[in-house]
Amino acid sequence: MSVEELKAKIQQLEAELKQLRDDKGGAREKIAQMSGEVVDSNPYSRLMALKRMGIVEDYEKIRTHTVAVVGVGGVGSVTAEMLTRCGIGKLLLFDYDKVELANMNRLFFQPHQAGLSKVAAAANTLQFINPDVTFETHNYNITTVDNFDHFMDRIKTGSLTGGPVDLVLSCVDNYEARMAVNRACNELGQTWFESGVAENAVSGHIQFLIPGEIACFDCAPPLVVASQIDERTLKREGVCAASLPTTMGIVAGMLVQNVLKYLLNFGQVSYYLGYNALVDFFPTMTVKPNPQCEDSWCRKRQAEYNAKKAAEPKVEKVVVEEKAVVHEDNEWGISLVDETAPEEASSEPQVSGLAKGITVAYERPAPTSTEEEANVVQSEDTSLDDLMAQMKSL
Amino acid sequence: MSVEELKAKIQQLEAELKQLRDDKGGAREKIAQMSGEVVDSNPYSRLMALKRMGIVEDYEKIRTHTVAVVGVGGVGSVTAEMLTRCGIGKLLLFDYDKVELANMNRLFFQPHQAGLSKVAAAANTLQFINPDVTFETHNYNITTVDNFDHFMDRIKTGSLTGGPVDLVLSCVDNYEARMAVNRACNELGQTWFESGVAENAVSGHIQFLIPGEIACFDCAPPLVVASQIDERTLKREGVCAASLPTTMGIVAGMLVQNVLKYLLNFGQVSYYLGYNALVDFFPTMTVKPNPQCEDSWCRKRQAEYNAKKAAEPKVEKVVVEEKAVVHEDNEWGISLVDETAPEEASSEPQVSGLAKGITVAYERPAPTSTEEEANVVQSEDTSLDDLMAQMKSL
Repeated sequence: MSVEELKAKIQQLEAELKQLRDDKGGAREKIAQMSGEVVDSNPYSRLMALKRMGIVEDYEKIRTHTVAVVGVGGVGSVTAEMLTRCGIGKLLLFDYDKVELANMNRLFFQPHQAGLSKVAAAANTLQFINPDVTFETHNYNITTVDNFDHFMDRIKTGSLTGGPVDLVLSCVDNYEARMAVNRACNELGQTWFESGVAENAVSGHIQFLIPGEIACFDCAPPLVVASQIDERTLKREGVCAASLPTTMGIVAGMLVQNVLKYLLNFGQVSYYLGYNALVDFFPTMTVKPNPQCEDSWCRKRQAEYNAKKAAEPKVEKVVVEEKAVVHEDNEWGISLVDETAPEEASSEPQVSGLAKGITVAYERPAPTSTEEEANVVQSEDTSLDDLMAQMKSL
Repeated sequence: MSVEELKAKIQQLEAELKQLRDDKGGAREKIAQMSGEVVDSNPYSRLMALKRMGIVEDYEKIRTHTVAVVGVGGVGSVTAEMLTRCGIGKLLLFDYDKVELANMNRLFFQPHQAGLSKVAAAANTLQFINPDVTFETHNYNITTVDNFDHFMDRIKTGSLTGGPVDLVLSCVDNYEARMAVNRACNELGQTWFESGVAENAVSGHIQFLIPGEIACFDCAPPLVVASQIDERTLKREGVCAASLPTTMGIVAGMLVQNVLKYLLNFGQVSYYLGYNALVDFFPTMTVKPNPQCEDSWCRKRQAEYNAKKAAEPKVEKVVVEEKAVVHEDNEWGISLVDETAPEEASSEPQVSGLAKGITVAYERPAPTSTEEEANVVQSEDTSLDDLMAQMKSL
């Protein structure tokens, strides 16, 4: 090695040592105000360039926002990192798990963090990456009674200004935790995103939920991406699920991209966006809430939303009604997983129309009234014919 | 300091680093053979589960593969990390840039690495994350004459067994570097992937290139994802491009997912996959090579491929010819960027048919013969009608 190379190596080793010795020290000072100045030392120059490019009108607004990330695993950790690097105001992290070497096949965590709680390890690294972000961590399971109450309280009062958070992002890997987030968000009228990755690691989805306006997680069986392989998104006990950094990175990217579109008001937020990795197929759709939803808070939010819509000037109402109601059969030909919901919900209808490429995680009992079918609107199908041709050729 | 003193200093720093890492839970030992054992201490358990799930037949095969990553920026660094965590055999990293704080809005690099070369900083972190992977780094610009020859040599002999690498991944941000990778791969008959992200940060794409079989980067103007905003993928001098960790993470994920499908033989590799972040639209298509391509090695590879196909038993040939040749007009209605190629190429035709949602980075001069149009096959369109409706409602 040349002297120059040796010196570079020393510089690099010293930098690594600095980080390991003092993770919280931060390599840069806090920055009081985001600047668009184009200099190598400005960590926000490429984000503020979104204004100059005409994409985002007010990028700095991101610093006023608070987002709660529930589940800091393969999707949640990358989600938190993306938001941190984008300069979000505050992040609340919830998880009760520890980092293990078995997590190293996904992005973010590193081997020396094995044994640490995921929320502590994540906050430590993220604070170092961007000291301008405020972090609040909760190392507990949100589904127990006491923790659930505390979780509700933090969603309600955890923002930078002591009010409700702007968004809750569910990045958990099991049905119970999803239902807990759903219940909390319905009761609080809290807008949130759900995300999920299949056990076989080759499909995933994100879903945007506005209580009363869009179907909640309890309105209909969970929607998952159809594939030619038997799968279900919901984790089964005792089975070691496969996972890939690619699928989880893409799902986290789809999630945070839609979070940015929602918070910074650009582009169009997807209500449901799926990803089938085997054929690079990304179905989208929207599902209306179920008037017979088991969740009483969901029904209450629906009544509020309907009253609000009815009170709006007619011109706005027409725009909403212009959306064609499409009832398509699921032409995918994939058999549904033959399993009923953990909580029997006899009053709930089956989903009658699904966008191509999307199916339900399991079937629920037949509806008591066929008139209460979940209405599927705005089914945005993508090239099923081509896809079927491709799949036949596999 | 003398060379001896510098070396001693390095040894000392390395020892300190090792001890600190051990204290923190430690970098892990190398693992001789991938195991599917379901224990928290096994970094490969979730990858080997892909076999049990019926997705991948022989996951361990990944350890025999070598991949070259050209450009270790927003897309390349995440690409290298994903491959490292998946347990790839060997990675060759090429870049001549240094880490800056201005890169902190993308994943992977951390503030303490500012000032280090991207390849050294990346290899250091990646080696720590997975000591089973072999790394080779080249801190130079591949487009200079001497470096280009060396680059060609490493692609040709850089694999674990001293032969050609399995894949080259172009993750660069400028036209000249893409053309250099294209030239090298055509001459070497090397299969590769190209990737790109638009300057406005809200679209990107990946492209799979097999010399002689699929259009090379010089066969036609580069294909980019259409958007309602004036944009071009190719970096202009003096303009500070916007970037987002989301878009770059998704493009890296799409890239590595297709690399895994190609190397491990599952699912279907996409020839061209685009991403429009504003409306979550992912167009796909395939373009045949241009018989009049400027690149003489491309024409040579086309002749070889055609000769090979002609010599194949008829039954196989029929399968190839079954693919319908589709000539569609670009119904997208997006005006092409009015700029000619840096290298004028009068013998090259314009692309006459593009999948919806895909456009070209710039127009080239009119073809000398209309019969030599680039043939577009297998245009896999996705829901333009819905998309147009969405865009109208924006």
